[in-house]
Amino acid sequence: MYLTLLEADKIISEIFFQIGCTENESKIISNVLLSAEKRGIPSHGIIRIKDYLGLWEKKRIKINPQIEVIKETPTTLLIDGDNGIGILVAEKAMRLVIEKAKLSYTAWAAVRNSNHYGIAGYYSMLALEHDMIGISMTNANPLVAPTFSIDRMLGTNPIAIAIPTNNEEPFVADFATTPIARGKLEILEKTNQSIDYGFVQDKYGNPSNDPGILKHGGAILPLGGEHASHKGYCMSALVDIFSAVLSGANFGPFVPPQVAYLEPKSEQVGKGLGHFFGAMRVDSFLTTDEFKNNMDLWIQTFKNAKTSKENCNVRIPGEQEKRSEQEAEIKGINVNEQIISELSDTLKRLSIPIMF
Amino acid sequence: MYLTLLEADKIISEIFFQIGCTENESKIISNVLLSAEKRGIPSHGIIRIKDYLGLWEKKRIKINPQIEVIKETPTTLLIDGDNGIGILVAEKAMRLVIEKAKLSYTAWAAVRNSNHYGIAGYYSMLALEHDMIGISMTNANPLVAPTFSIDRMLGTNPIAIAIPTNNEEPFVADFATTPIARGKLEILEKTNQSIDYGFVQDKYGNPSNDPGILKHGGAILPLGGEHASHKGYCMSALVDIFSAVLSGANFGPFVPPQVAYLEPKSEQVGKGLGHFFGAMRVDSFLTTDEFKNNMDLWIQTFKNAKTSKENCNVRIPGEQEKRSEQEAEIKGINVNEQIISELSDTLKRLSIPIMF
Repeated sequence: MYLTLLEADKIISEIFFQIGCTENESKIISNVLLSAEKRGIPSHGIIRIKDYLGLWEKKRIKINPQIEVIKETPTTLLIDGDNGIGILVAEKAMRLVIEKAKLSYTAWAAVRNSNHYGIAGYYSMLALEHDMIGISMTNANPLVAPTFSIDRMLGTNPIAIAIPTNNEEPFVADFATTPIARGKLEILEKTNQSIDYGFVQDKYGNPSNDPGILKHGGAILPLGGEHASHKGYCMSALVDIFSAVLSGANFGPFVPPQVAYLEPKSEQVGKGLGHFFGAMRVDSFLTTDEFKNNMDLWIQTFKNAKTSKENCNVRIPGEQEKRSEQEAEIKGINVNEQIISELSDTLKRLSIPIMF
Repeated sequence: MYLTLLEADKIISEIFFQIGCTENESKIISNVLLSAEKRGIPSHGIIRIKDYLGLWEKKRIKINPQIEVIKETPTTLLIDGDNGIGILVAEKAMRLVIEKAKLSYTAWAAVRNSNHYGIAGYYSMLALEHDMIGISMTNANPLVAPTFSIDRMLGTNPIAIAIPTNNEEPFVADFATTPIARGKLEILEKTNQSIDYGFVQDKYGNPSNDPGILKHGGAILPLGGEHASHKGYCMSALVDIFSAVLSGANFGPFVPPQVAYLEPKSEQVGKGLGHFFGAMRVDSFLTTDEFKNNMDLWIQTFKNAKTSKENCNVRIPGEQEKRSEQEAEIKGINVNEQIISELSDTLKRLSIPIMF
């Protein structure tokens, strides 16, 4: 069913307000989850609410975290998220990075003791209005088997980079460093679809087409397929190292799960999960106008590339998501019936009147 | 045939000295090309000499470039390579970045007006002895078709990230953002081998197994294969934007070819090709010891992952290359007969006595 943006925002904010978030915190969480819905990435939207609540009920995340800068240099911040909801930790970290970059042209934050932060792209896009390139990445609970492995060692570890433009829409790359995100497998499973071979393997390392295979010891494969999965493994590994080894968070197989029904590993090598953020003023190099005009030209050049099929253009990263966002501003968001029913259960449990 | 490292170094240095490089410049070029050979990446080693000479003969690159810092902020450098051999430009840029990062903890350089720079990993590894993470990337002449495209819009645009360790060998990721590098196709072609489907397409966008297809209007496919090539396209695009749009170099389809028998596009949108370099002190966040010990633990953890086959471990990026390097220190480098014969021709043309 369709929810208007106003309805959806009210529902989400109310849920987090009810469990103890401040009005401001609830609003930030709602903004980030709705941004995923609007951008056509429902795997990181409303479907995640029950995970956050489950962790809260088990007292595995703090509702009002005291996010702290532990160490600072002229260009970097080490931040402790106080085991808060990742969304609040990430939003604050990215704002601090942007402030720092205003002075030092480029700035970076490594964050530990955090949790799942929703869509990576949201934070990178905060840099755009400051004429900065925004960078955001996070590690995640282990679901991915590196090349040759049958152990799950890495998360789907997304990376997002947002780049300002002049007249064109901004370039916003936001992707899991696997051929598929975990949330997308979950959507396929909920809608009883199978998945093409090449995305997941079973617990013995054999090819599988079962989107639910992760529950039976299977693993997601790295980006790159049969020929080049070592490159995808390498990218996921880099995101893991920047997010967690630099910050002192748990890395690789030690990252705590983002769902309450799985217990964290008893052995921990750091604190919580980790993120990494960056902001670069584009006028560090050319002038802002030169850069933004060149980006427009880059985008126009790629949009005009010849394609093998009619009506099928080369896409610019973020283009499709922007279109989806614009559509959502008019029509609201289309939420799958099973997720609506989960949402209704959540509202009942928290004694919030159902508003749809 | 095998060449000792001393022989190979003498030959390469002599070639570049003969065409006008200073002794120091010749030595740097030899170091970088030999580093590729030693690390088992011959596609970026001696085979490239004839390309550099071809460009020099056509006066398309300068032998003694006046590499200049055009703009500087507390954390960034914009560098003009004066159309020099990319190796000299990149080596200098990376050294300047490391010096800057000593003061500001992190530093970045965008470089324009350069040319092909050999292996990306060499420059990133220069950061290791300073306990910094080193980052190196470059755009390259267009051979890759973005998802849906039949036009060649992007290079194989490699990225390299070197990360210091304590007792373990450093983590050195160094990969083309395509399933295969151009140089590797060239090696397959020279040795009359075909290539598996999934790496290249013909000029109409059909699958192909011909490693020589680039000469007939074909293109390399992005990383990610059938299911996720948009992610590989996105990575190549990011390397292109950081290397060329930030610096004011030619981007995408406008990047000048690295071989003399192809003419540059008459339309230029910037100067030469572009690189991007970065260095981050690891003590920006944790202490150097904490970080390096954690990296050791990361590596040991991944090496110990269970695999589906016996005697087949999860590999650490750079591990294989390091082993190859250690072997080369003892046995020298094994150079393919056709490349030896090309090398002999070069030596004859420059009236250098053949020393092997």
